[in-house]
Amino acid sequence: MIIIGEKINATRKPIAAAISAKDEEHIITTAKDQVAAGADYIDLNGGDPNPETEAANMEWLVKLVQDNVDVPLCLDSSNIKAIERGLALVKSKPIVNSITLESERLESFLPVLAEHECMVIGLCLSDDGMPRGVDDRFDRAARLIDQLTGIGKKIDEIIIDPAFLPVSAEPESGKAVCQAIAKIREKFPEVHIGGGLSNVSFGLPKRKFINLAMVSMAISNGMDTAIVDPCTPYMVPIILAAEAICGADQWCANYISAYRDGRLG
Amino acid sequence: MIIIGEKINATRKPIAAAISAKDEEHIITTAKDQVAAGADYIDLNGGDPNPETEAANMEWLVKLVQDNVDVPLCLDSSNIKAIERGLALVKSKPIVNSITLESERLESFLPVLAEHECMVIGLCLSDDGMPRGVDDRFDRAARLIDQLTGIGKKIDEIIIDPAFLPVSAEPESGKAVCQAIAKIREKFPEVHIGGGLSNVSFGLPKRKFINLAMVSMAISNGMDTAIVDPCTPYMVPIILAAEAICGADQWCANYISAYRDGRLG
Repeated sequence: MIIIGEKINATRKPIAAAISAKDEEHIITTAKDQVAAGADYIDLNGGDPNPETEAANMEWLVKLVQDNVDVPLCLDSSNIKAIERGLALVKSKPIVNSITLESERLESFLPVLAEHECMVIGLCLSDDGMPRGVDDRFDRAARLIDQLTGIGKKIDEIIIDPAFLPVSAEPESGKAVCQAIAKIREKFPEVHIGGGLSNVSFGLPKRKFINLAMVSMAISNGMDTAIVDPCTPYMVPIILAAEAICGADQWCANYISAYRDGRLG
Repeated sequence: MIIIGEKINATRKPIAAAISAKDEEHIITTAKDQVAAGADYIDLNGGDPNPETEAANMEWLVKLVQDNVDVPLCLDSSNIKAIERGLALVKSKPIVNSITLESERLESFLPVLAEHECMVIGLCLSDDGMPRGVDDRFDRAARLIDQLTGIGKKIDEIIIDPAFLPVSAEPESGKAVCQAIAKIREKFPEVHIGGGLSNVSFGLPKRKFINLAMVSMAISNGMDTAIVDPCTPYMVPIILAAEAICGADQWCANYISAYRDGRLG
């Protein structure tokens, strides 16, 4: 399982405030807490209405975080300038979050991704908007894989995000996402699958319960990458438990070693 | 979702001690705590090597618990004498836990079940032992349904337990159980499916995480009945969350109302 810590994202008010105030301490603590909780990558999103500001934010975040934690980064922006600034600075192979099938995004992102050694999240979003149902997600995943292998990415450098939509607004989407994951996993056994599953609980109370239920279900269908808040109580233990149940952790070796290391709390 | 509170079971040492000492207070508190946490039924198991003692234990437990909580009971024994004593006393339609395909159990249980109004759990265990894989579970489920409808049980009075085996000993069983649930649900849309899923975590540390991951996965495949400890932190909220994600709780109405009632903690 690849766990990407989602917390350093400017859509969260305390993070936006910390970026704006250049509050290094707050960002470093947020990064370190996530690594301690089990994050394999730290997502960095310095989103700002002004593209130049966002690119400068990314530069500041990349330098700050990679100087203070030992895990690689996930550069999170729809703005290719911000991504490029991040790619120029990273010390370890990063994840780019994310390319989509939108024409403009493809055109701006593909040449940059082709030039840099990186993994990339392919989100099943196109000029037609968000996907609906299972087959639509699968078809978009196949097109993303085609585009990305076309510029030389290896299949295991690609992470397909099937688009986790809020179940409060799209009641069928929870089941559809699970079935789409299973279908993508079956046809592309080596691709990574996962994404920002906390979207599922958007608009609902006590979002952590929805996120915890979703992560188990998605793993049981073949998800192997999760953009989550690893500091949420029970999140990392339940991810490890789900892998143990589904045979992704043979003989529960990883679960038991996490217990011995005190990582199950 | 039918939630059956599993705690009053003589395989748990404090319960065995309470039964032996006729400690009414301990049993009543254990029943009330489970109802408060969301149990729809209270499981009663007074297991004892001596069949007469077990039957007497069941009688004591049934009287005590139904005088103190308002939910119906789940009479849990492989000893038909204990089941009969319970059936003679219950004030509300109970669940009998459980019949199996073992010849001796079928022979002793079927005539009794035919005579009493009750729901019944059919566990996929036969003279050949525990089931292996998906098709074996499905075939046994079909045979159990055939036996039970044959004595006049309606399809929605039957709860198929696909046999949740310890993943520490049977690494493939977690996935097989989920797939078997999906297959049974597809072919028998009106049957109830579920059982004692805490068995999955037997032999592993921090069992609650395994149980919480398992319950989400099983619900996403069509489980609608769970024998669990509803007092486990996060258990009932995650059950409700899993139903909201999977469309078993349209527009998340039940999840939101549980939140408003303070049932999500």
